[in-house]
Amino acid sequence: MFPYQQLYQFTKNIFQSIGCSDSDAALATDVLLAADLRGVDSHGVARLSGYVRLWEARRINATPNIRVVHETPSTAVVDGDRGLGLVVAPKAMEIVIEKAKIAGTGWVSVRNSNHYGIAGYHAMQALAHDMIGMAMTNASPLVAPTRAVERLLGTNPIAVAIPAKEQPAFVADFATTTAANGKLEILQRKNLEAPVGWIQDATGKNSTNPHELKDGGALLPLGGETGSHKGYCLGSIVDIFSAVLSGANYGPWVPPFVSFLPLPANPVGEGIGHFLGAMRVDAFRPADEFKAHMDNWISTFRNAKTREGEEAVLIPGDPERLISAKRMEEGIPLLDPVIKDLEGLGQKFNIRL
Amino acid sequence: MFPYQQLYQFTKNIFQSIGCSDSDAALATDVLLAADLRGVDSHGVARLSGYVRLWEARRINATPNIRVVHETPSTAVVDGDRGLGLVVAPKAMEIVIEKAKIAGTGWVSVRNSNHYGIAGYHAMQALAHDMIGMAMTNASPLVAPTRAVERLLGTNPIAVAIPAKEQPAFVADFATTTAANGKLEILQRKNLEAPVGWIQDATGKNSTNPHELKDGGALLPLGGETGSHKGYCLGSIVDIFSAVLSGANYGPWVPPFVSFLPLPANPVGEGIGHFLGAMRVDAFRPADEFKAHMDNWISTFRNAKTREGEEAVLIPGDPERLISAKRMEEGIPLLDPVIKDLEGLGQKFNIRL
Repeated sequence: MFPYQQLYQFTKNIFQSIGCSDSDAALATDVLLAADLRGVDSHGVARLSGYVRLWEARRINATPNIRVVHETPSTAVVDGDRGLGLVVAPKAMEIVIEKAKIAGTGWVSVRNSNHYGIAGYHAMQALAHDMIGMAMTNASPLVAPTRAVERLLGTNPIAVAIPAKEQPAFVADFATTTAANGKLEILQRKNLEAPVGWIQDATGKNSTNPHELKDGGALLPLGGETGSHKGYCLGSIVDIFSAVLSGANYGPWVPPFVSFLPLPANPVGEGIGHFLGAMRVDAFRPADEFKAHMDNWISTFRNAKTREGEEAVLIPGDPERLISAKRMEEGIPLLDPVIKDLEGLGQKFNIRL
Repeated sequence: MFPYQQLYQFTKNIFQSIGCSDSDAALATDVLLAADLRGVDSHGVARLSGYVRLWEARRINATPNIRVVHETPSTAVVDGDRGLGLVVAPKAMEIVIEKAKIAGTGWVSVRNSNHYGIAGYHAMQALAHDMIGMAMTNASPLVAPTRAVERLLGTNPIAVAIPAKEQPAFVADFATTTAANGKLEILQRKNLEAPVGWIQDATGKNSTNPHELKDGGALLPLGGETGSHKGYCLGSIVDIFSAVLSGANYGPWVPPFVSFLPLPANPVGEGIGHFLGAMRVDAFRPADEFKAHMDNWISTFRNAKTREGEEAVLIPGDPERLISAKRMEEGIPLLDPVIKDLEGLGQKFNIRL
């Protein structure tokens, strides 16, 4: 178990070592560790060395000039200047929130960025302002559209955070595939079979081999046998909003997170793309009234009668909030390979874990 | 086969007979028949007598005063005054589009409305303005959240329409359940079994009986065995955006479409709710540039290598566009019970089919 503060200080020092300013390093650390706190272990410090390798490969710029390249009262396109997505996205979200304060809603499409950690973090930034927050991002292609064997979409997550009054906020954050890539990575490490419906092999047949993607297989869109066209729609919408609107790369041109893979030839845009939004609740009805009804919505669903043997119905965000409180108190568990990875990083930059 | 014009004239006459103005009747007919044209037979003239019965039960107001009750530069809440959703939604979408012209985007949450036909129609209204259109609606509760046996959500569809240049527009329109209720109705009529994963019985066990909902069963959220929490998230977001933002009924309080079911006791809002949006493409980048990249996106996906034995990869909207062209030319096929139903309506109002 690693205390949050210990991982925070270490991670921040690493980001400073690659040239991030004090405040950017703190911001990137806050975003990255939100994943470890919320139990999304695949998106937290386990990826820290990956970001460093992208910086070493000159694919990440530690001192980006993040700027608005076009705007209207409720929209903007932001160029991330190859900055860490962990810094670009929360700064773009600030622009979103400022727009929403004046125009009622704010919508920013971001280009020239990188992996931005967990989508939920960015959506949740809106909550403190009594706004509904939204965050999407495209990602390197691992997913085959319905009927296809080619990988043309990323796991393209969607997060939506909605404030309530006495109840904790509603926070949905999910990949538009049957299973997030992080869940597959866990099966890979443990050499366990994947459930049918998660993966297909290179010819498009169902597979339960979690290593299938190395042999040309693909993840499947959310929806299963008779509904994968709906997950394909969702992943496509995320791709188009994040990248075709902003001028980032889309579809098969999205650059990989891992630095050892080459960048796709003939890019159609710059970096990867995000789409961020916020809606002021009182742009629709008084905030207090809205939040009281959200409390009622939440308690109605939470108290619904369950199937025999099932625990209570969950509200989106419940599991992550509970694990976050626990880990903040008891510390964050890390797998041995992740600890070794962090120790290696520490040696490289002469920083103690 | 019924020529489009014949069904159009008949349907418009019926709407006029219940008191709709000439222009409202034309609009409602246009929306309703878009479903028949696009192959969504469950949402077209098959529902016409249902709307009439709601009017007879005084749950629909044929001469509504549709008005904005609150607004900001990019948002509004619209009160539909119990009007036909087929009229309220397209009129609210006009407000959305006017907002987007000035603020870059427009977002309207609608209360006090009724069933609005197919979501895709409303989203597609934005296309002619070089805007991305979005439409959602809540609906009467048929769906159990993950783990639950109670029906708390409707099939709550999402539609997103995105313009392209030479290629036809991208038009996604799907229920946030494994199967839309219309697909279930087809199985009910033919007495065929439903695939596993569509339905659960009153105790929450998988069922293949398409009549299960009459015995307390429920439709399942999109996502299947390991992913239904994602469909539950999506359906919830639609419910909250459509009704908690606007002041309509949400969750178990959404009024039924069928007039013989009583209205839920202790309503939490007025009527059912919709959420409509539009984003001007050139609020992000020049429209021509965006649309050229959409063409590239579409042709890349359409030309992807397919699984053995599968036809070409489809772009969302392809099947509906093809069937629409065919039916506009060859006529619209109607099932015998639907024809009888229309003939009954014709007798009631002295209008020839």
